[in-house]
Amino acid sequence: MTPNENIKALRQMMQSQGWDAIVISGTDPHSSEYLPARWQARKFVSGFTGSYGTVVVTHDHAGLWTDSRYFIQATAQLEGTGIELHKLRVPEAVDYPEWLAETLNDNTTVALDGLCMPLATVRHMQGLFAPKGIKVVSCPDLIDALWSDRPSLPDAPAFELGVEYTGRSRADKLDWLRTAIESKGCGSILLSSLDEIAWMLNIRSRDIAHTPVIISYLWVGSDSAVLYAEEGKFNEDLRKALEADGVSLAPYSSIVESIAEWNCDKPIYIDGGMLNYALYEQVQARFGEAVVDATSPVKLEKALKNATEIEGFRSAYRKDGVAQTRFFRWLEQAMERGERITEIDAANKLISIRKEMDGYIDESFAPISAYGKNAALPHYSATPEQCSVLEPRGLYLLDSGAHYVDGSTDITRTIPLGPLTEDEAADYTCVLQGMIALSLASFPRGTRGANLDVLARMPLWKYNRNYGHGTGHGVGHVLCVHEGPQDFRQNLYDQAIMPGMVTSCEPGMYCEGYYGIRHENMLLCYEDEVNEYGDWLAFMTLTCTYIDTTPLVEEILTDEEKMFIDSYNMSVYETLLPDLTPEEAAWLKTKTIDRLFEVEEEL
Amino acid sequence: MTPNENIKALRQMMQSQGWDAIVISGTDPHSSEYLPARWQARKFVSGFTGSYGTVVVTHDHAGLWTDSRYFIQATAQLEGTGIELHKLRVPEAVDYPEWLAETLNDNTTVALDGLCMPLATVRHMQGLFAPKGIKVVSCPDLIDALWSDRPSLPDAPAFELGVEYTGRSRADKLDWLRTAIESKGCGSILLSSLDEIAWMLNIRSRDIAHTPVIISYLWVGSDSAVLYAEEGKFNEDLRKALEADGVSLAPYSSIVESIAEWNCDKPIYIDGGMLNYALYEQVQARFGEAVVDATSPVKLEKALKNATEIEGFRSAYRKDGVAQTRFFRWLEQAMERGERITEIDAANKLISIRKEMDGYIDESFAPISAYGKNAALPHYSATPEQCSVLEPRGLYLLDSGAHYVDGSTDITRTIPLGPLTEDEAADYTCVLQGMIALSLASFPRGTRGANLDVLARMPLWKYNRNYGHGTGHGVGHVLCVHEGPQDFRQNLYDQAIMPGMVTSCEPGMYCEGYYGIRHENMLLCYEDEVNEYGDWLAFMTLTCTYIDTTPLVEEILTDEEKMFIDSYNMSVYETLLPDLTPEEAAWLKTKTIDRLFEVEEEL
Repeated sequence: MTPNENIKALRQMMQSQGWDAIVISGTDPHSSEYLPARWQARKFVSGFTGSYGTVVVTHDHAGLWTDSRYFIQATAQLEGTGIELHKLRVPEAVDYPEWLAETLNDNTTVALDGLCMPLATVRHMQGLFAPKGIKVVSCPDLIDALWSDRPSLPDAPAFELGVEYTGRSRADKLDWLRTAIESKGCGSILLSSLDEIAWMLNIRSRDIAHTPVIISYLWVGSDSAVLYAEEGKFNEDLRKALEADGVSLAPYSSIVESIAEWNCDKPIYIDGGMLNYALYEQVQARFGEAVVDATSPVKLEKALKNATEIEGFRSAYRKDGVAQTRFFRWLEQAMERGERITEIDAANKLISIRKEMDGYIDESFAPISAYGKNAALPHYSATPEQCSVLEPRGLYLLDSGAHYVDGSTDITRTIPLGPLTEDEAADYTCVLQGMIALSLASFPRGTRGANLDVLARMPLWKYNRNYGHGTGHGVGHVLCVHEGPQDFRQNLYDQAIMPGMVTSCEPGMYCEGYYGIRHENMLLCYEDEVNEYGDWLAFMTLTCTYIDTTPLVEEILTDEEKMFIDSYNMSVYETLLPDLTPEEAAWLKTKTIDRLFEVEEEL
Repeated sequence: MTPNENIKALRQMMQSQGWDAIVISGTDPHSSEYLPARWQARKFVSGFTGSYGTVVVTHDHAGLWTDSRYFIQATAQLEGTGIELHKLRVPEAVDYPEWLAETLNDNTTVALDGLCMPLATVRHMQGLFAPKGIKVVSCPDLIDALWSDRPSLPDAPAFELGVEYTGRSRADKLDWLRTAIESKGCGSILLSSLDEIAWMLNIRSRDIAHTPVIISYLWVGSDSAVLYAEEGKFNEDLRKALEADGVSLAPYSSIVESIAEWNCDKPIYIDGGMLNYALYEQVQARFGEAVVDATSPVKLEKALKNATEIEGFRSAYRKDGVAQTRFFRWLEQAMERGERITEIDAANKLISIRKEMDGYIDESFAPISAYGKNAALPHYSATPEQCSVLEPRGLYLLDSGAHYVDGSTDITRTIPLGPLTEDEAADYTCVLQGMIALSLASFPRGTRGANLDVLARMPLWKYNRNYGHGTGHGVGHVLCVHEGPQDFRQNLYDQAIMPGMVTSCEPGMYCEGYYGIRHENMLLCYEDEVNEYGDWLAFMTLTCTYIDTTPLVEEILTDEEKMFIDSYNMSVYETLLPDLTPEEAAWLKTKTIDRLFEVEEEL
């Protein structure tokens, strides 16, 4: 069906049900960022393929709300559909709940799929709608009626990620969780975030591309736990292992009915920011007022990586370093031979090299392989139909990553393919200065990403230049490549950066129509020293891929920055040496050891 | 009466009134930081002279709540009073509202002077007390009963600060305010902040030491306004000038009764964070639900200095620069002659020099004159009984400022009186690097102090050192030396730094028992450029007093920092030259032009 037909069908549904608006959210029952095909309802309805947005249909309007990353793409994809683009994250932006509250008449009705909308969002709408008496009705899977070939639930097998990789047993994690919820007066908890469940139970799957989680819910009571997931995904061994730790299996969709039977006389803990509204309605029917709605304790605990996970990240970055050395050498030599290489060829080459690495599971996201002016779109995605050929000039940006059994990676390198303009070289240098400044930060416990973010920006801000995205995000351990709760950005978000957190540091600079630059390393926060002035934290860099120093404008680098680059590139060379062929090692030497600034250390 | 007698008298009052606790707040009816003697009830009751704190008395406990600035002082002053120190801003601190909520029994009563407690604080208490049914009763001036020699209202004459200094007429400000409150649907506004009233009406007085405001309330309706203040303070001319702009006078305390008669059929605008609870009760009785409680629009408008005010600040800092040059030259020469100079002698000398300057009104706060280890207390206050003699070694810190008719100053310089230890020199350098980094910041509109604060700290944080206070505060124009809404600190406070704001930049380093360092310049935010990456703001330094470069450790300074220092000291010399005697100019040359780093500019 075309978007026009879909909108028409939705309006017929509204007519027959007595609704005045339908909201098609952009997520699944688990508030996931990346979705299996089954829940890509927004894409099905509108044809818009971006990762973020909401469709709203009223009797006389159809709109898509999305942010600046997708304005160009959405405009193109919505053409002729009758769906209007509503821009978010621009001055005077009006989000769809506010738009509905303003546009709809008194005592009207808004319908939505309560399975695909978190409780907190519904509550926010209800608050806005209350003065006009606008009602919200939840109609689970309302899209089913028009989506005849809707994909079914994914059925990838589940597998165990052993303690040798996770560093902490399932039993230990369950004990910890039970203590955590007891301290809030709760006797049980319902988890719906897929990465929290996978982390809790040390299990993974391939249900969703690039995110090795399992479509499931997990209920944990004081002496039992139930994992709601398609049972066919679990082999006998894994099922027995779960049972040995008191975790029984039940069919995924049986959760809706089983909530009424959960046996617990204490309050239940839920995370209303993640739990979908349809399940919340069941929870409320069962527990009444005895519901504690707060951020899931798993969210922070999962972000504080243990020693085994950290060692795994290091190993993953070493493998990634070998793969990228191999890739960049191939690229340089292929370019020298004058081969025709497209952005997609390059990305595929890197994937094929990574696949050879030990313990490879999947790419951690679809790589951004962008040459020249394409790189000025921070979320550029090359397609076979529309992708550039790499030329021996200008900058090439590659943002990619992988999940290995021991850890996950996310790395961006921008490299020169030949001569650069002065602006390209200057921006390349400033972006690197930003990455270095944040990497070298030392700060007292309690400092948030919002306090530190400016360090990565000031080298660009000095020249009144900036990048329009956050500086960094948390990364899961063989889980989501974008993981909370911490980040580096300007928003005043009250989450301290804590020891064990693994967070990307990725400033950039995008010059529309010309070029784009991003340098991304992964930073591990660790405790450095406790003294009379505080409890001091600092960062260690996990990423192990050389930084190309050819474009650097030496005059604007401080001695401290030169020393950082020298010591980083030396350490990359020394760390990777044992895993490189002699030819690869010789090549990497020309990029690192042969090109040091060799500043005399005076400090 | 002694504190012990006061506590006893308060308990008798509690007994006879049926109260279970009395709260003695540390403020006046206007939420002022510095108070006239009449409202120094906390000091009267407890003997504690710090600028921040609250006394709470129950039948079996008496406590003073204050923060880390005053732990040492409070401990000393409370000795033998039976009043216990409760520490705030430490881990696990419990503030007095929470303490009362926890300690008191169900259905008890807390009494307070509603005139000296803002609405927001009372509401906060009521929220905490509700579960236990604890009541709050407001008893205006309850302290009167035991304070037999309580000072009366100050009676300093009021004077007009003309448009030549304020840059904006009273009529224009009243027009602006009426439009601002109309946009919120209000027909009138009640202002109670003394600096907001003084700014609105272009009037000043000497009611409070160091803060040239008038004890008053101001009600502004759509076509009239009433200033509630002691009428004897106004001469005929000023009274007529006010009347010409539609502002009539009424006795200060008549406001309580007159609220009932305010003629306005639209809602009234109040700022519950500032308005005292006793007046709020009257407002509510008169206006019922038709009260809009929000931050006063004057707060931000007042902070955005206009061109005349900015020129006045420049002029004030030039005068201050001359005075400080004269003072530091005197100090150096007196020390060379071996004269005995105490911290108080030095402070008094500077005051006497400042008093000679054109348009001098008052010191803008009591100077902090601190030698050696005394400077390690950021809020040290020397007394004739206890003050050090300056010796020809170590560091001397002087934090001072003045109000002139055209502008206000606040400046800290730390200077060497002789040889320094390595730590003193290194910290002196790092603190200066912090001041320079923030001074050189360029940032897009929307950036808050919380985002920028780290720039001033990182040079110290690098060495795991820090200072325990904010980096900067707004400064009023011939008003309060500490002015909101903006600041530079780590707290996630959502106020952007905007063009026209004048904010101090004063990092420090305090080594207990040894030395203290603070460098403070005043920064004016201005709009630099609008381009495709944003609307770019930057800072100009208003302060015009040389920075002593003798202690600087050159190896840890970057070329950019050296260039900043050179250009700053050159500009100080050139700016002050016309106002200095030849001898003073020659001396200042030895501190500035003769000591440049003279880095070659490559950038």
